[in-house]
Amino acid sequence: MRPHVFVNVAASLDGKISDENRRQLKISCEEDLEVVDRLRAESDAIMVGIGTVIADDPRLTVKSAILREKRVKEGREPNPLRVVVDSRCRVPLNSRILNDEARTLIAVSKLAPEDRIKDVQKLAEVVVFGEDRVDLSALLDHLYEKGVRRLMVEGGGTLISSLISEDLVDKMRIYYGPLFIGGKNSPTICDGNSFIRRCRIEKIERVGEGFAVTVRF
Amino acid sequence: MRPHVFVNVAASLDGKISDENRRQLKISCEEDLEVVDRLRAESDAIMVGIGTVIADDPRLTVKSAILREKRVKEGREPNPLRVVVDSRCRVPLNSRILNDEARTLIAVSKLAPEDRIKDVQKLAEVVVFGEDRVDLSALLDHLYEKGVRRLMVEGGGTLISSLISEDLVDKMRIYYGPLFIGGKNSPTICDGNSFIRRCRIEKIERVGEGFAVTVRF
Repeated sequence: MRPHVFVNVAASLDGKISDENRRQLKISCEEDLEVVDRLRAESDAIMVGIGTVIADDPRLTVKSAILREKRVKEGREPNPLRVVVDSRCRVPLNSRILNDEARTLIAVSKLAPEDRIKDVQKLAEVVVFGEDRVDLSALLDHLYEKGVRRLMVEGGGTLISSLISEDLVDKMRIYYGPLFIGGKNSPTICDGNSFIRRCRIEKIERVGEGFAVTVRF
Repeated sequence: MRPHVFVNVAASLDGKISDENRRQLKISCEEDLEVVDRLRAESDAIMVGIGTVIADDPRLTVKSAILREKRVKEGREPNPLRVVVDSRCRVPLNSRILNDEARTLIAVSKLAPEDRIKDVQKLAEVVVFGEDRVDLSALLDHLYEKGVRRLMVEGGGTLISSLISEDLVDKMRIYYGPLFIGGKNSPTICDGNSFIRRCRIEKIERVGEGFAVTVRF
């Protein structure tokens, strides 16, 4: 058994989530950020890949105090569990994702150095799944056992690619901002190796000056 | 003065126009191909980059006999002029784009070898613009002088990237098919080097099982 896996990502019209220098760009609009905050608040856990942590240093917390209070009233923690897929345990110890605003789980593989794991364990729970890369299917099983029923994945392109190609995604929402970023080396919505996975387009809606597409697999 | 430049491209939801092996994939649906044929028939010239010629060997002709007849009744040639941006004059002599279904113009740079140019000149007109790569702005001026008022660009990602970043595109239509291709080395809608170019989303419409987005720059 695994949680319902929902991917949310913001990209340019040419599918880029950043430029060739992995600079954090303003792709989302205010309206989209509000939707994303609501989606986070409805989730039990938020997952990202280590590349996103290193490039963007995100907090992955619910921004709206009202939504956090609503969670608490429902008997939940104010913020969802944060999950980082980090095969070699490279997460910087001063990452915002390791702060005390929410609980954090770092998923590593057997390739992760023992001493790094020990350092990180002072700040977060560390779990080991897979030989040289995190076994995503086993990690999802583990999250389900921990009570996670709705998992939101926020990138980056390598993690999303692995999840889609391993058939572990139920639903995906892409916000396309009204811009082109270009760059054959720019990170895209779906990196890794290429594959072909068809889906069904469920909804297309204007959001701010861009639009959002929701698909089912 | 330059022609009205309109880019049309079909991509996966993650912005890929092919997979990492540059295999030609079925991204467009029948409905989209009909729209593309109509857009071709309305154009004075169709432009592609040499990468697309080598990977896909397209004909770039109007498929519908009715639309070709309509062009002829209007005093035009049955097919638009085909233009290839090919800095080093690499176009294979057996390319379909050099067949006799339509006129073809090969735009090369001063880097193109003389003997290659001579071979190609037996099958198509060759023009030289730019030192080590085709000067697109000068090429567009030349096309305008030749009477081209509406130019349709059909890819690939490197040519589209150059045109957008050099501010030479007026309008662009992207058909997104209901699939993910993935691959950090897969060609995307906009390759080359990264830049940031904002645009205005004019129209979003369902086409077959995918959707098409039209933007203005």
